[in-house]
Amino acid sequence: MLQHLFTLDDDGTTSLQRQLQRKLIDAILNGYFAAESRMPSSRKLAELLGVSRNTVVAAYEQLIDEGYLLSRERSGIFVSSHVFDEHAESCQNDQLTENQFDWSSVCNPTSIEASSPPYPDNWEDYRYPFIEGQYDQSLFPLNQWRECSRISLNVDEIKSWARDSGYEDDPSLIHEIRTKVLPRRGIQARPEEILVTLGSQQALYLVSRLLMNTSTLLTMEEPGYQGMRQLAQHNLCPVRFAGIEKDGIALADISPQTQLLYVTPSHQVPTAVTMSRDKREALVAQANQDNFIVIEDDYESEANFISNPNPALKSLDSQGRVIYISSFSKALAPGLRLGFMVASPDLIRRARKLRALMLRHPPANNQRIMALFLSLGYYDMTMRRLYQAINERWQELREALNHYLGPYIVTSETMGGSTCWVKGPPGLNSHKFAAAAAEKGILIEPVDRFYGGKEKPDSYFRLGVRSLPKEKIRPGIEELAKLIDDIKADGDPSFGQHLTGEALKRFMADVTFTGHTVFGDPYRITLFADGQMEGVEGHHDEKYDTGTWWLKDNIWYRQWQQWSYGELLGFDIFVTDSRIHWVRNGKLVDAANYTKP
Amino acid sequence: MLQHLFTLDDDGTTSLQRQLQRKLIDAILNGYFAAESRMPSSRKLAELLGVSRNTVVAAYEQLIDEGYLLSRERSGIFVSSHVFDEHAESCQNDQLTENQFDWSSVCNPTSIEASSPPYPDNWEDYRYPFIEGQYDQSLFPLNQWRECSRISLNVDEIKSWARDSGYEDDPSLIHEIRTKVLPRRGIQARPEEILVTLGSQQALYLVSRLLMNTSTLLTMEEPGYQGMRQLAQHNLCPVRFAGIEKDGIALADISPQTQLLYVTPSHQVPTAVTMSRDKREALVAQANQDNFIVIEDDYESEANFISNPNPALKSLDSQGRVIYISSFSKALAPGLRLGFMVASPDLIRRARKLRALMLRHPPANNQRIMALFLSLGYYDMTMRRLYQAINERWQELREALNHYLGPYIVTSETMGGSTCWVKGPPGLNSHKFAAAAAEKGILIEPVDRFYGGKEKPDSYFRLGVRSLPKEKIRPGIEELAKLIDDIKADGDPSFGQHLTGEALKRFMADVTFTGHTVFGDPYRITLFADGQMEGVEGHHDEKYDTGTWWLKDNIWYRQWQQWSYGELLGFDIFVTDSRIHWVRNGKLVDAANYTKP
Repeated sequence: MLQHLFTLDDDGTTSLQRQLQRKLIDAILNGYFAAESRMPSSRKLAELLGVSRNTVVAAYEQLIDEGYLLSRERSGIFVSSHVFDEHAESCQNDQLTENQFDWSSVCNPTSIEASSPPYPDNWEDYRYPFIEGQYDQSLFPLNQWRECSRISLNVDEIKSWARDSGYEDDPSLIHEIRTKVLPRRGIQARPEEILVTLGSQQALYLVSRLLMNTSTLLTMEEPGYQGMRQLAQHNLCPVRFAGIEKDGIALADISPQTQLLYVTPSHQVPTAVTMSRDKREALVAQANQDNFIVIEDDYESEANFISNPNPALKSLDSQGRVIYISSFSKALAPGLRLGFMVASPDLIRRARKLRALMLRHPPANNQRIMALFLSLGYYDMTMRRLYQAINERWQELREALNHYLGPYIVTSETMGGSTCWVKGPPGLNSHKFAAAAAEKGILIEPVDRFYGGKEKPDSYFRLGVRSLPKEKIRPGIEELAKLIDDIKADGDPSFGQHLTGEALKRFMADVTFTGHTVFGDPYRITLFADGQMEGVEGHHDEKYDTGTWWLKDNIWYRQWQQWSYGELLGFDIFVTDSRIHWVRNGKLVDAANYTKP
Repeated sequence: MLQHLFTLDDDGTTSLQRQLQRKLIDAILNGYFAAESRMPSSRKLAELLGVSRNTVVAAYEQLIDEGYLLSRERSGIFVSSHVFDEHAESCQNDQLTENQFDWSSVCNPTSIEASSPPYPDNWEDYRYPFIEGQYDQSLFPLNQWRECSRISLNVDEIKSWARDSGYEDDPSLIHEIRTKVLPRRGIQARPEEILVTLGSQQALYLVSRLLMNTSTLLTMEEPGYQGMRQLAQHNLCPVRFAGIEKDGIALADISPQTQLLYVTPSHQVPTAVTMSRDKREALVAQANQDNFIVIEDDYESEANFISNPNPALKSLDSQGRVIYISSFSKALAPGLRLGFMVASPDLIRRARKLRALMLRHPPANNQRIMALFLSLGYYDMTMRRLYQAINERWQELREALNHYLGPYIVTSETMGGSTCWVKGPPGLNSHKFAAAAAEKGILIEPVDRFYGGKEKPDSYFRLGVRSLPKEKIRPGIEELAKLIDDIKADGDPSFGQHLTGEALKRFMADVTFTGHTVFGDPYRITLFADGQMEGVEGHHDEKYDTGTWWLKDNIWYRQWQQWSYGELLGFDIFVTDSRIHWVRNGKLVDAANYTKP
């Protein structure tokens, strides 16, 4: 192998020895000879390269003089370990700037925004990574994946996947997708309506290359998936934005000129809002009427814990104008890059052709493993386990947010998912806040990358629990709350009159508080003179709890059976005409309306 | 799952029963309920769908009337097996044509030629698939790949590949490529100069998207890799063609206006010509002088059996203007889709960004398996074994061609590889010939797809041995020769005077034949009066053999020790003033010049 590294040229202009020195230095700096490693003997190198031994000896001596090599008596010549401290950087830079081809002048302009996620590469080293789009080792179906992987390496299996399959996908994976995955979303599809892709991203890329140009109008959600905005930019496709309402995209914002609509109905990216059944039907009707194409990105299809999943838009589409895109990244691991799209055979045929030009087909061994995984029923099992775990974490996150960040934040009503979309207190700069949190080991996501319009609200951020074990959620949010307290400290509002002594006792002996949780669920708490209290929560009073309260040193203490983790907490009480404020250490913890009988 | 398939809408316009019938028919025709399978009981289905049992019973009865279902007393309701014969086609077509969105009007024109290979999907079912670009099961390093695959599923390994790695590649694979693969080609590269791709094809796609536009001039070889021509078309990039000489691309054909040059120096696609060392240096010098970029496609880097591999163009490139592209498809299996490119850090950075937009990154599990495979030394082992096998086959192919198709074909001098580029007899239509061969179970590749210019020569074809065991090569070529005989039969040339009796004996008793093999190697055969003969072959008389000859019934018989498989063969002899023609059954088998002492 060495002789190929050191192709020497007897061209008369540079001596062989000089050439050899330069190649040796390159090789050392590039790490082919590691620090402290022994160099080949001069005899051996001379033989390999077909030069005289003297040439090699002279080159070695020069490099010893220059400090690249060290000679150790009776043991040979070694690479100096100091080389790397001093030379590596500068030499590589020299190499780069001298007489090099200038690529910037010839490359097509690709106006792509940076798309790196807003958290560091080593997110796993943080104590509380509240991020989305990554993966939890503990939820990976290790044994099942191993088993399928092993089966895929049987001689007969290899035979069927190792060949270049040209345009085609693994027929067994297509079969499993159409019979095991799509029916869960209410979708019936024929094999020629399905294309396997490298994650959702490749499906979106294919669709954008096939359908976008400078005169296509794309409408997408705002805030929305930045990857779609980048694809529109890449294809010089004009974009309009439609707002998000409680039940999904604002239909009125979709102009009749729209030709392409991109939506994320299951859990809107990034707000996690689930599109209602009614809105789904209205959207498909609007698409039929205004003749636009719908790209349905169902990246997280079934992470819907509260009610039955709504059917996919694709299942309501009788005209073949919905392109359904999904992936196995969330169920298994994003690193596998396996996804698929479902659309009319005509579009799939075109996408398949373009895919062949891009890269032929997704790796066939992974297609086969996934097909086996589905056929053995492991996908259903994995989904169940995954959603149970994520659901528990998500509920835990909501409870912790409500408890620790009650008065400061607003978050949307969502139907499950793995994230919460949070509006911080006015004046919060989410980038500064995220940086401060990161210093404490807490990762949260600032969300301005999701905004393509002129306004990028400062105070929103997103919290995800996909990569965080349940037991870390409460302490993580507790620490985050302390941080928000510190930030809030400036500009204290007035809490009204501070109640003490008899006034406090009289007020608390018989009072009802009404308010809303941070998720908008109404609650009602009634205190009785005997120190008992009871509370109901939810639009239909679904939740109920009882607790006790008492006074000591002008502090009002309370403890629920279940709510607020059953924690014993004491507060200073401030009231105005209609509002009560719970205050600890001079800081507002919660507020509600009150009524006296 | 059923309830999602049958989302029923009480919208007042279509009765529930009618809706249910339609959905059931769809489900049956799409195969969700297999022929002869039992339907869910009406009670169960009604419960699942939340409709009255009467609705289901009525729908079932209607479908029984229509022949979709059958009622079997006391055992339930079953899917009729006749449905599929009669209805499937027409119903699906109905569904397709009625009120469907018209994609042809909205899709961007993608003027991509069909790129499917010129052999059938079931090529493995043919007796003699002389095709290139596929794979031989028996050469796959089964146990080693299994081992690496197993290691990659250790908990720690999974942890490092399962996550979304964003822009990045597996650092361990990059390390192995730069220290184990590239040095074989004389290339030193830093990690930031390497990008992992889904086969060579993705690298070419990335490069084409970054560098081609309507005003870039691409020069490529003619004949040449059709995939590159397709990418130029896709990017509306003008193309010029340069011819192929004995030592590679014709440098004089590369116009100074060229901005991008695409070459396949190791084994030119499709002629298999290897670019000489001198021409490599001249090409890089020309690129530096005329300031063009070189795309070096080293798809089959090391399949060079005859001499040491020439260094890659990239290793001669001091200005960073060569983009080196290669893949592991040939060494392992094309289905894995793993390749890489090496270029200046600036270009790699841009390609990485575009790759992220296309699909994020190549599947990380495969990257890790490949890294393990390289680190354990299995790649070297596989390459050795592979090239030994392919070399044996290739030599076998050359011998068989020379023996059976001597007078009809011309093929180029090549330095190994796995294919032979064959010029058939004048008037041969390679498409018709390939079709006729396929009927006999022999697959050969017509080559007009490799031509982008106006002239697409009819009579060339290509033979490959990558997917064919050695022992099948000779019989395959023998059968092919019979076929060419049949085709040649019309328009027999004159062979000169038919020698018989004493004239034959006198002529043969002392004569020397000189000629060339089908590969252009010279040979010289001398006959002696005692019935002995000897032959030498090669530019330096490298090959030597002896044999015997005799006459019987005016037929000249000969038998070599080694050559021509040591076969005993008899010929009619025809001569002109200077040429001898060996003829069997009225058909020319070989011809040479002769000299009498």
